[in-house]
Amino acid sequence: MKPDFEKQILIPVIVQDYRTQQVLMLAYTNEEAYEKMLETGETWFYSRSRQKLWHKGEESGHFQKIKGIRLDCDQDTLLIFVEQIGNACHTGAYSCFFNEVKSFDERDIFQALEDMVENRRLSPIEKSYTNYLLDQGIDKVLKKVGEEASEVIIASKNPDKEELIGEMADLLYHLFVLGNIYGVTLEEVKDKLRERHQKSQNKKEFHTRTAD
Amino acid sequence: MKPDFEKQILIPVIVQDYRTQQVLMLAYTNEEAYEKMLETGETWFYSRSRQKLWHKGEESGHFQKIKGIRLDCDQDTLLIFVEQIGNACHTGAYSCFFNEVKSFDERDIFQALEDMVENRRLSPIEKSYTNYLLDQGIDKVLKKVGEEASEVIIASKNPDKEELIGEMADLLYHLFVLGNIYGVTLEEVKDKLRERHQKSQNKKEFHTRTAD
Repeated sequence: MKPDFEKQILIPVIVQDYRTQQVLMLAYTNEEAYEKMLETGETWFYSRSRQKLWHKGEESGHFQKIKGIRLDCDQDTLLIFVEQIGNACHTGAYSCFFNEVKSFDERDIFQALEDMVENRRLSPIEKSYTNYLLDQGIDKVLKKVGEEASEVIIASKNPDKEELIGEMADLLYHLFVLGNIYGVTLEEVKDKLRERHQKSQNKKEFHTRTAD
Repeated sequence: MKPDFEKQILIPVIVQDYRTQQVLMLAYTNEEAYEKMLETGETWFYSRSRQKLWHKGEESGHFQKIKGIRLDCDQDTLLIFVEQIGNACHTGAYSCFFNEVKSFDERDIFQALEDMVENRRLSPIEKSYTNYLLDQGIDKVLKKVGEEASEVIIASKNPDKEELIGEMADLLYHLFVLGNIYGVTLEEVKDKLRERHQKSQNKKEFHTRTAD
């Protein structure tokens, strides 16, 4: 299946970050640029202002490595998942969509919590529970991790689904505080899980490191 | 800041799911449809084929409630975050981008793991560690949750950052198995964290339920 270049000479291409799912830019491709994309595995567009093919990154070095390509229901729009080298926008911004008309925080809640803990560390706030934990230090945080894990176990044995949801949320929150103290990021933990998941997909099973 | 309708009568609009960040569709707006969007908080487009304004969902009931609006660097493309009612695509698909040209799994690793555990439960695989846990049952999974939490604590006290990343990954994986057993989804835990985070943002602090 390919874009319908008979219907439209220029097909819009939505470029999305393959990891964060952030939309980076929109550009246009003609048939020639599309063939180049399939051939090279990097994005090529047709510049409407310069009226010529354009290999994204050819001047800036900010290439986009193609991870996936989808075509919409009526074959006149492309969605491309990329690994972005450097920034997508010529202004130096990571994404071209930085002008807020109606503001919205699209961050995943885990990302938002990770950022919140770091913000509290840099700019403490009175009566903040996060700052209380950070001030008390590692032993306090580890005691809380143990306590919350126990509470997950107890909620499971009751069993009480609502309680379990709350205790899991508590445990995760304290893991974010712990991660902050040791400089362990959410992405590092996700990378570890991705790595294991890929291995297990190849073997059709999931082995954690501690699995026999 | 508003789209530059002097430059282009029709501005492409990328519509993105405000929760999953999945790209749902691309449509076009003219100045009139744009004003309607700001006025009603729902998406309106200009249909190029029917040459008229189009209130998305007016026939299907599949309205899109606008959560956020961004404009790109050169003001000729809009990115709109929506809460999608029903499906975005007229084919009945959730997103219009269902045709795989180069296939890519854009799911977050947490989502992928949650799906994997459910798949193992429905279609067990020999030598799968996940199936081993599910077969052993809740007490075994809870023992592992306790063990992995302890290993997080030990790795922190060593301290060994790489070990800590691995142990956090182990703990999270076992929480997914636990969640599956009790029908607790990742989204439910995230919702709980979102709810608390929003409350804390209002108070400029973060209180978990267990916080004093």
